[in-house]
Amino acid sequence: MKAKVYVTLKKGVLDPQGKAVGGALESMGYKEVKDLRIGKFIEIELNGSSKTETEKRLKEMCEKLLANTVVEDYRVEIE
Amino acid sequence: MKAKVYVTLKKGVLDPQGKAVGGALESMGYKEVKDLRIGKFIEIELNGSSKTETEKRLKEMCEKLLANTVVEDYRVEIE
Repeated sequence: MKAKVYVTLKKGVLDPQGKAVGGALESMGYKEVKDLRIGKFIEIELNGSSKTETEKRLKEMCEKLLANTVVEDYRVEIE
Repeated sequence: MKAKVYVTLKKGVLDPQGKAVGGALESMGYKEVKDLRIGKFIEIELNGSSKTETEKRLKEMCEKLLANTVVEDYRVEIE
């Protein structure tokens, strides 16, 4: 089974890396860029047959390790 | 307009960060994790009306700054 996890900074949390990249794009002439935020994209290959059970376990992994839930949100997608 | 850019390591390129996280999950009892790879997920807000033109510009940004095309692939999605 394949899963995708998206970890993004919560709204209101400053993203200095995103700001820097957005500023760099602007100075390169891409003036249309208004805002840019950078998150993580995690691709996981797992053994398992039950989608429901896998989703539950993945959410646990996010809470415990993959995301810092104080400042980050996460979203899990199973293929 | 909102766009999402996914930057992932090419197949065959080692991902030590992913290896470390995968190993950590395994040692935490998530033995079902077979492989894990970490990429970047970039959310961009842009001015612009033409989807085709925006996509072209975004691809340029990826080639020039957002992705290192020697070792990374990218995918652009416009909403």
